[in-house]
Amino acid sequence: MDLKHLKKEWEENILFPLTKIFPERKKKFLSPSGLEIPNVAIPEDYEYKGYLEDLGFPGDYPFTRGVQPTMYRGRHWTMRQYAGFATAEESNERYRYLLQQGQTGLSVAFDLPTQIGYDADDPMAAGEVGKVGVSISSICDMETLLKDIPLDKVSTSMTINAPAAVLLAMYIAVAKRQGVNTRQLRGTIQNDILKEFIARGTYIFPPEPSMRLITDTFKYCKEFVPRWNTISISGYHIREAGSTAVQEIAFTLADAIAYVQAAIDVGLEVDQFSQQLSFFFAAHNNFLEEIAKFRAARRLWARIMKDRFSAKDPKSWMLRFHTQTGGSTLTAQQPENNVVRVAIQALAAVLGGTQSLHTNSKDEALWLPTEKSVRVALRTQQIIGYESGVADTIDPLGGSFYIEHLTDEIEKQAMAYIERIDAIGGALTAIERGYLQSEIQESAYQFQKSIENKETIVVGVNAFEDQEEVELERLSVDPEIEKNQVERLIQLRMQRDNVRVSALMNELETVAKSDGNLMPHLITCVENDITLGEICGVLRNVWGEYHPQNWI
Amino acid sequence: MDLKHLKKEWEENILFPLTKIFPERKKKFLSPSGLEIPNVAIPEDYEYKGYLEDLGFPGDYPFTRGVQPTMYRGRHWTMRQYAGFATAEESNERYRYLLQQGQTGLSVAFDLPTQIGYDADDPMAAGEVGKVGVSISSICDMETLLKDIPLDKVSTSMTINAPAAVLLAMYIAVAKRQGVNTRQLRGTIQNDILKEFIARGTYIFPPEPSMRLITDTFKYCKEFVPRWNTISISGYHIREAGSTAVQEIAFTLADAIAYVQAAIDVGLEVDQFSQQLSFFFAAHNNFLEEIAKFRAARRLWARIMKDRFSAKDPKSWMLRFHTQTGGSTLTAQQPENNVVRVAIQALAAVLGGTQSLHTNSKDEALWLPTEKSVRVALRTQQIIGYESGVADTIDPLGGSFYIEHLTDEIEKQAMAYIERIDAIGGALTAIERGYLQSEIQESAYQFQKSIENKETIVVGVNAFEDQEEVELERLSVDPEIEKNQVERLIQLRMQRDNVRVSALMNELETVAKSDGNLMPHLITCVENDITLGEICGVLRNVWGEYHPQNWI
Repeated sequence: MDLKHLKKEWEENILFPLTKIFPERKKKFLSPSGLEIPNVAIPEDYEYKGYLEDLGFPGDYPFTRGVQPTMYRGRHWTMRQYAGFATAEESNERYRYLLQQGQTGLSVAFDLPTQIGYDADDPMAAGEVGKVGVSISSICDMETLLKDIPLDKVSTSMTINAPAAVLLAMYIAVAKRQGVNTRQLRGTIQNDILKEFIARGTYIFPPEPSMRLITDTFKYCKEFVPRWNTISISGYHIREAGSTAVQEIAFTLADAIAYVQAAIDVGLEVDQFSQQLSFFFAAHNNFLEEIAKFRAARRLWARIMKDRFSAKDPKSWMLRFHTQTGGSTLTAQQPENNVVRVAIQALAAVLGGTQSLHTNSKDEALWLPTEKSVRVALRTQQIIGYESGVADTIDPLGGSFYIEHLTDEIEKQAMAYIERIDAIGGALTAIERGYLQSEIQESAYQFQKSIENKETIVVGVNAFEDQEEVELERLSVDPEIEKNQVERLIQLRMQRDNVRVSALMNELETVAKSDGNLMPHLITCVENDITLGEICGVLRNVWGEYHPQNWI
Repeated sequence: MDLKHLKKEWEENILFPLTKIFPERKKKFLSPSGLEIPNVAIPEDYEYKGYLEDLGFPGDYPFTRGVQPTMYRGRHWTMRQYAGFATAEESNERYRYLLQQGQTGLSVAFDLPTQIGYDADDPMAAGEVGKVGVSISSICDMETLLKDIPLDKVSTSMTINAPAAVLLAMYIAVAKRQGVNTRQLRGTIQNDILKEFIARGTYIFPPEPSMRLITDTFKYCKEFVPRWNTISISGYHIREAGSTAVQEIAFTLADAIAYVQAAIDVGLEVDQFSQQLSFFFAAHNNFLEEIAKFRAARRLWARIMKDRFSAKDPKSWMLRFHTQTGGSTLTAQQPENNVVRVAIQALAAVLGGTQSLHTNSKDEALWLPTEKSVRVALRTQQIIGYESGVADTIDPLGGSFYIEHLTDEIEKQAMAYIERIDAIGGALTAIERGYLQSEIQESAYQFQKSIENKETIVVGVNAFEDQEEVELERLSVDPEIEKNQVERLIQLRMQRDNVRVSALMNELETVAKSDGNLMPHLITCVENDITLGEICGVLRNVWGEYHPQNWI
């Protein structure tokens, strides 16, 4: 008798007679993505087309088990804590502290004015300078930020989107001043404008020139900064905005398809730039669904690149990704519990095969994390890496009936979304029509409702509450910072060669109006102390600003 | 071509050319039990004899996937924090706090004098009263300990061994005074003397009468307290003493075989008492090996009960177990890191299908845990139970090539140990000859060596150290406690009917010399305010005390 029938017999003879007397905790068990959860998974719960087709070996198509042949047996994932606040000096100090603590990559958080292309002394920046990240207005700030950090050795991730090309230009210019060959530079700019339109909101320019800035960085980096990840296509913010795991994968890969198509449309060969694409996902609480999600994303992207875009180079098929534990899953109540959540989420990311990882600090739901809580977050990664043993064998959960079932289901459902987005006309159109946004909003609404009616339990929030007051050490940003930052900028503008500055800004305007690559001009501009705000000002004048439609 | 050959090709063509240039982190990857870890597991890494033979459905032989048909879909494991300190009053307060916080079972820690059968006023007890657990000398203490706790509703675990029968007698007597039918009582006495000889050291009597006390509780409970677990055969202390995971399983099941055989030898039918056996394991750091260990233990025990002891009732085949996270894995350095370790270990216990769980508090490596740190430990279980989703499907990792490989290996190696122990003449002889002890010592030595030479990394201890001082809230035991406890006992001895007391003690001596069941007499003794020390004193006179030989 086959196993499906045997399971039915077991259910009828053993399970159901029991559950009639002692019902299960829930009438129906659903994953956070709404997938039905089997009581116990068996091999028949997924369609097994063969080991090589479904799984493959690590570093080999379809990369379900990992993108590198050795994975963490070779070296651990990059332990990369996103950090940055106040001034470049203070952030620099934090980075050097983290590197000394055993962190292996930098991750730069920028303040809001920088993210939307305003200098610290712009009236639009008032009250926000240095608040959620570091304020970088000029190459001088960037130099201070990277002081005494060997740029040929570290890999640096910069969470910057709309003006990503300008910040990359500053980074390249500083590396040159350090005497580092740009071919050695390793790191990532987020540079993912589509998810800004969908979920995060820090856009500047309309879609078309925004996409052009991105393809300009693709072109420039493939030639001069070949080890740099020119984009980090991000599901993290989509997830944090309330999407499900399935939507996170679906919408991120739909965005990725749009970028690849845009690059092809401006004349790039698919195998020339695709190795420099990278991804960024969240790791939320549902341990098993998250692990399966990462595996499904890898397999689906490999199939898309191979079949849809006919990429030939196996490196173009690989989905490499950074993961951050889920900020929105942390609770202000009983913040110590967040250490537990972060540990479980981080473990899922590692079992899912992430290339790098940021673990949130327990107080990130409350304010900027203190040095002590950042250290515990980093130790969490080190304990997983060095004590838990999960790094010693590749894809240790591969073959699990439930994980394989879930990997299959997530891939299928994500693919169905991508087909719907294709039918609408691609990610850009789907975003303009508000389709992705309304799908996310619906999920976020359902999730909130499930917390309210306690179908979803959040420990310390809607169950197991305490009356106790939170007592945690608190880090605050000094208001003097904004003043000092503004003064430094005024100094810079007085001391630079302002005749050359105007000439270069005119030249920038001309190139922006043409279809030439902006990157070399951006580098020259920042090298001559032209500020971020000034550059974005020129581009704003030429391209205009984006204002969201009323979504249908 | 078969998968083994395909893997070989992958290794030769893709993996080895890479590792020649970038070698793996270690020359050989070994699990803490010394099992070789494959680079990537494939189905061919274990001998699959068929789904029903290897795995079975939950609640069905060989129980690899769990002992109940619904497992945590029915209800979560019992969240049971081991606690107890100082006086019965204070412990009672802590229990009521924990029950109110959502804990679902009690777990009582006794102080050292109680564990070795001395009253609080005995000179042997001086300086130790109430230190590592609660001091219980008489039924009055037990009544205070359980005040306002409904004994027909909670399940209570008592970590007591040599004098387990006496403490059980007190519990039964208190239940009777509460008006609770003993048939409703649920809980466990540890009652596992063999691991005391092997590893823990709190024995009183020689092996033979020790085993008789145990079989007496088996006999009594099968008739009058049928829902009580009469023994918790414990690998925890074996593991904490430095054994590997394989040895933990092997030696625990070897002890269990000795108990079952002893019960059969005194005339009990195997299916009459075996449902009341329970087990107690540790969850240490190696996430995957620990999960596989629990699955292997379940399958191996089912086979032993069915094949070796010809048990007919499926309930006799089930290995039900309590788990505690590994106390010895916690570090005094950077104690916040222990929250992470405990989370990972607890997750392994749940993925391994434990029936109940104690999660250690972060400060347990330093001193008795504070209420706050105990709460975080309990929240860890709740987050796993309610947020991580792992409780929603049974044995979610079943089928994983690596987990199944490891389950197989651990079962095989544990079975090989059991065969060696059989050849020596069983667990009791093997313990008398010091075989188990020396095997554990060898493992402990190897582990220490691997920490010293940094093959094993302990975060914060031999890597990623800080200079920082530990600042943690500290709980201390008031020295007044011993004085008060002694005074209460003197009062009790003055107020009771001492004529009846002597008569009962004489009667107890007579029964101890015969082969009658001691349990009913113990209950009568404690009901008449005879103390633990007095009872054990009588038994010491009759049976003598155990003193370890110099192990060969």
